[in-house]
Amino acid sequence: MALPAPPHIGALPPGPRHAITDVAGVTVGHCTLDAGSVQTGVTVVLPHGGDLFQDRVPAASVVINGFGKSIGLLQITELGVLETPIALTNTFSVGAVAGAQIRQCLGANPECGRSLPTVNPLVFECNDGFLNDIQRMAVTEAHYLQACQAAGLEVQEGSVGAGRGMSSFGLKGGIGTASRRVRMGTAGDTVYTVGALVLANCGRLPQLVLAGRAVGTRLAALAPVRPPEPEPEKGSIILLIATDAPLDARALRRLALRAGAGLARTGSVFGHGSGDIALAFSTAYTVPQDSARPMPAIAMLHDALLDPLFQAVADSTEQAIVHALWRAVAVTGRSGHRRAALADLLPGWPLV
Amino acid sequence: MALPAPPHIGALPPGPRHAITDVAGVTVGHCTLDAGSVQTGVTVVLPHGGDLFQDRVPAASVVINGFGKSIGLLQITELGVLETPIALTNTFSVGAVAGAQIRQCLGANPECGRSLPTVNPLVFECNDGFLNDIQRMAVTEAHYLQACQAAGLEVQEGSVGAGRGMSSFGLKGGIGTASRRVRMGTAGDTVYTVGALVLANCGRLPQLVLAGRAVGTRLAALAPVRPPEPEPEKGSIILLIATDAPLDARALRRLALRAGAGLARTGSVFGHGSGDIALAFSTAYTVPQDSARPMPAIAMLHDALLDPLFQAVADSTEQAIVHALWRAVAVTGRSGHRRAALADLLPGWPLV
Amino acid sequence: MALPAPPHIGALPPGPRHAITDVAGVTVGHCTLDAGSVQTGVTVVLPHGGDLFQDRVPAASVVINGFGKSIGLLQITELGVLETPIALTNTFSVGAVAGAQIRQCLGANPECGRSLPTVNPLVFECNDGFLNDIQRMAVTEAHYLQACQAAGLEVQEGSVGAGRGMSSFGLKGGIGTASRRVRMGTAGDTVYTVGALVLANCGRLPQLVLAGRAVGTRLAALAPVRPPEPEPEKGSIILLIATDAPLDARALRRLALRAGAGLARTGSVFGHGSGDIALAFSTAYTVPQDSARPMPAIAMLHDALLDPLFQAVADSTEQAIVHALWRAVAVTGRSGHRRAALADLLPGWPLV
Amino acid sequence: MALPAPPHIGALPPGPRHAITDVAGVTVGHCTLDAGSVQTGVTVVLPHGGDLFQDRVPAASVVINGFGKSIGLLQITELGVLETPIALTNTFSVGAVAGAQIRQCLGANPECGRSLPTVNPLVFECNDGFLNDIQRMAVTEAHYLQACQAAGLEVQEGSVGAGRGMSSFGLKGGIGTASRRVRMGTAGDTVYTVGALVLANCGRLPQLVLAGRAVGTRLAALAPVRPPEPEPEKGSIILLIATDAPLDARALRRLALRAGAGLARTGSVFGHGSGDIALAFSTAYTVPQDSARPMPAIAMLHDALLDPLFQAVADSTEQAIVHALWRAVAVTGRSGHRRAALADLLPGWPLV
Repeated sequence: MALPAPPHIGALPPGPRHAITDVAGVTVGHCTLDAGSVQTGVTVVLPHGGDLFQDRVPAASVVINGFGKSIGLLQITELGVLETPIALTNTFSVGAVAGAQIRQCLGANPECGRSLPTVNPLVFECNDGFLNDIQRMAVTEAHYLQACQAAGLEVQEGSVGAGRGMSSFGLKGGIGTASRRVRMGTAGDTVYTVGALVLANCGRLPQLVLAGRAVGTRLAALAPVRPPEPEPEKGSIILLIATDAPLDARALRRLALRAGAGLARTGSVFGHGSGDIALAFSTAYTVPQDSARPMPAIAMLHDALLDPLFQAVADSTEQAIVHALWRAVAVTGRSGHRRAALADLLPGWPLV
Repeated sequence: MALPAPPHIGALPPGPRHAITDVAGVTVGHCTLDAGSVQTGVTVVLPHGGDLFQDRVPAASVVINGFGKSIGLLQITELGVLETPIALTNTFSVGAVAGAQIRQCLGANPECGRSLPTVNPLVFECNDGFLNDIQRMAVTEAHYLQACQAAGLEVQEGSVGAGRGMSSFGLKGGIGTASRRVRMGTAGDTVYTVGALVLANCGRLPQLVLAGRAVGTRLAALAPVRPPEPEPEKGSIILLIATDAPLDARALRRLALRAGAGLARTGSVFGHGSGDIALAFSTAYTVPQDSARPMPAIAMLHDALLDPLFQAVADSTEQAIVHALWRAVAVTGRSGHRRAALADLLPGWPLV
Repeated sequence: MALPAPPHIGALPPGPRHAITDVAGVTVGHCTLDAGSVQTGVTVVLPHGGDLFQDRVPAASVVINGFGKSIGLLQITELGVLETPIALTNTFSVGAVAGAQIRQCLGANPECGRSLPTVNPLVFECNDGFLNDIQRMAVTEAHYLQACQAAGLEVQEGSVGAGRGMSSFGLKGGIGTASRRVRMGTAGDTVYTVGALVLANCGRLPQLVLAGRAVGTRLAALAPVRPPEPEPEKGSIILLIATDAPLDARALRRLALRAGAGLARTGSVFGHGSGDIALAFSTAYTVPQDSARPMPAIAMLHDALLDPLFQAVADSTEQAIVHALWRAVAVTGRSGHRRAALADLLPGWPLV
Repeated sequence: MALPAPPHIGALPPGPRHAITDVAGVTVGHCTLDAGSVQTGVTVVLPHGGDLFQDRVPAASVVINGFGKSIGLLQITELGVLETPIALTNTFSVGAVAGAQIRQCLGANPECGRSLPTVNPLVFECNDGFLNDIQRMAVTEAHYLQACQAAGLEVQEGSVGAGRGMSSFGLKGGIGTASRRVRMGTAGDTVYTVGALVLANCGRLPQLVLAGRAVGTRLAALAPVRPPEPEPEKGSIILLIATDAPLDARALRRLALRAGAGLARTGSVFGHGSGDIALAFSTAYTVPQDSARPMPAIAMLHDALLDPLFQAVADSTEQAIVHALWRAVAVTGRSGHRRAALADLLPGWPLV
């Protein structure tokens, strides 16, 4: 049965696309591998359309739970900028995608690693080993490039890209995205956009809360539809936040942390085996690689004005997780493992 | 109208007292100052009944949002132990209570600061300046000692002790406590207790979610009862977690972080002006001050077994916040400022 | 025997005052308590002459070793600004000085803690309990205010202010300061100043290295002059860095960390019992308390240009520690405890 | 001219091998690639001879300066254990070596990533792009395995393994190792060993200090032998510490941080472009992957007894850096770039 539109989280309005691409300049691309026991892929988020190595974007991350193998955060924490597309994939493909990012950067910057510094790959991961034959390491450099080439404003959600093989709350998980608009200023005429994109692979079914409703315990009680679930949780979730508000790395770290509030509302307690990692970036300005180029002179948003953005981060993150579950389709993969889709199980909405 | 018993959060059972004192050895004491524009106090949590300076307790903290003036966390992060009672009070009384802790330790350990190291005071704070004339700095050393002398197993909640002047979600906040029991092992015969105690002074009314219900938007819409609310939020929340599970400081930090999940479920997005700080300690063993005494040889709980404790932390924290609001009574203080009690506003429960 | 001028550390030139006050706007004041067993005091560093609560200064700290009781770092780490004078005193006087800072702020900002946020006291400490009767808690609010009133461009060093009772490397320690100038830009016409001020109370004598020379082992071998030394080390060192370079909190944290390099060159290994804490601030701009006032639009210094500043931080920190020892005079205090001065022990310089 | 034995740093005695392998159970292996413009390699440090995925070793890291692309630290910080050999290589080969570690683990643990968690690769890197054609990404999985197979107690130093193409202080850098023995207890009959192994690729020539002597300024003044040097510094240094003392992750982090003290004594100020990262591990016990296996019950060393170990970490780290320079041989690589060896430049020792 088809579900209606998903419930809206909170009081803030979304942007026109209901997606992270409502933040101007941001694009998203997927490459999906769907072939028998290979159910995996790559998703990329591009903060702008230029050369990110030359024009870096302010960014910061928060490790909510560090059972994870993502790479690139060390340097982002030190320098407060990201300098490649943000890539998402499965745990064992981090090395392949990082290599692809290096070669991509070398193509555009032949002196990278010589007269120029080395580039800092940025690859996030979740373990899709329940549905995907992760040991096959099927993702290659070409898949990363295909995801980059596919990048655009329309964002497919659910069982696509890096989300193809992911499970969340015992259901089919994957990619979800959402956005919120915030009005500021005495006249309310300053508008900022916050966008979230998640790779949802975390949680156990009984924990699931959808828009405040304890959906998980309801579904878990329906024995015939209870999907098989590995014990203990070995999931993860990646939480990406974009905004056009002028913020430096310190303030962006504060935003990233609020993605954890949105995650918690879905029932997650940041499980031991879950790599729960958030990253926030701003598109309001760039930081040049070359120190001979002028640095931007930006009046940052005052910290005391951040509360509406914090609300937008929590709400859009929760919304993105709802979307990931809502839009996912059932997938059967390795060893006949199958994850049912929420849309196939939920007997209408709202629950009565 | 009297409210029924508060809703139970989650599936785990509470301990017999529904309080942090369900963790064996833990006691709690209050000293409440209720005199016109002075509406404040001190609350203490004692991990055990001995000399904490000599027999220190493993502990770790997490700064969820660092708009706060608590003291003592620096050394706890380095050494992984606490060595005084945990004190809670208002922001401007931190110095007085810290001085009281030092003198208390000197009384029992005359060589402290001479042949022995200095003692590390541990004082958490929230700003109760809406109801309390915080500028008067009414809390003295004697009040801290009274709270210590009053410590016992029964825990008063609501508008008492350090919670006397606190506001939360535009309502009267204060002290709340709760506990959960977790069974482990193949036979389920290993039982651990997790206790939470909060000093709730955070949040704006429209954000409030009670046991999954958006109570705040409902109450905010009832214009006549909407309490006055300072803008922007200048609150804070202190989240204390106790457990008898054998955990070291690294694992306790993981527990402390999950208090943030419980907090997020109540609607908080960890506001900019809110000092949201969690601390977890274990009573399973002590660490001697004197390096000539033997160190404990403890088999810690395996990290892969922490998920039920994480759930217990999130659930008991949320429950403790519910209790703080549920049990608070209305208080009128400085300049006639008044905070209504949830119990006075909520038209029954559950909401229909 | 009088020592010659202390050796110059590194190749960078100092500013005209050889002091942290070479950074324009910065002033330093002391209040020294010298009365029998009371050998202690207060030192303040003021980043500018205005109201720091209203016009806050970008700042960041690094905890090199967290066996310490300093207060105020929590909020500085979150917000990246300091909003009071920086105060230094003994361990048990932190509360008294913090209270003094609060009252000082209330005097200038009567709404602090009411319609305005609470102020964040910033007090660093070392344990001077060997020479000073620290248990007497002799420092009062008046002493803090006297130090503020005494603030100026000339900086006394050695056994003054908070340094009165401090010991370092088994010798008399205390206050030291130094500065370095850095030229940048293609024409070398951009000049930045880095200033350091330390409260030196760390180290054991055999570790001491002065300008590369293992002075400590030499002095330790001279049995008649070997000063009594408590075992194990219970010292600490506070390392303050000022600069006029335009840097945000993230970059200032990077500077603060390099103070640890200067400290390490003196022979310290950041002893277990030593609270080794660095804080760096910039005078290049201020951040308003009031979010209605405009935020500064500053072109920060590019990270790739920080190396000369890192060098200046390490060199001026090492130099300031040398100054603290070089300028200290012997002090006799509690129980007849005495710390000899380096100037009394060192048989000339350079050592042959 | 052949140099004499390198100067001994500090007062503590070394172990019999003067190497990290003096810590019982630790072995080291290299695979060196020396072919024209390919001057690079892999070095591995194995904490013990068993299956590290099943029997994990307590570990902790400190990021001194985060301009680096090492992977694996995220999970080590969360869980406090390492579960693979420690691999060192060049910056662009991190992905290849991480993939090799994953496959190595899969070979021994076929359920890794399925019923077992995914394995956490641990690969450190420096940029050897001055001598090595790093863009060729010449390191393969086979090279990692060769390094593992070559692992033993004898440790080659200098221009070998991952150190083949590294430069340090404008000279040929690379691998260095050292050890120290510490006696404890009232009878001095408890002996712990600390071992250090560094991959030295940091620093500019004028900064270099050897055993307290400003060798760098001396050599830099000798114009004919001054080696070509890229500006600004784009180096890095990896600092590995092993010990047999019983320490948990919190205490090991404290040890790792003291490696920075040893590094600072060599003249480094932790340059902006340098990824300076330390990791410490203990061989005193292991932590099982399988939570059904019993956890070790270890009496950890009391924190107040750590000072001699801190001294041993700083001294052995400085010694290892001295060894890396002292034992390196000149290498000519990419585009005819050449790094001279310290042994070829230094006119005897000690300098007069």
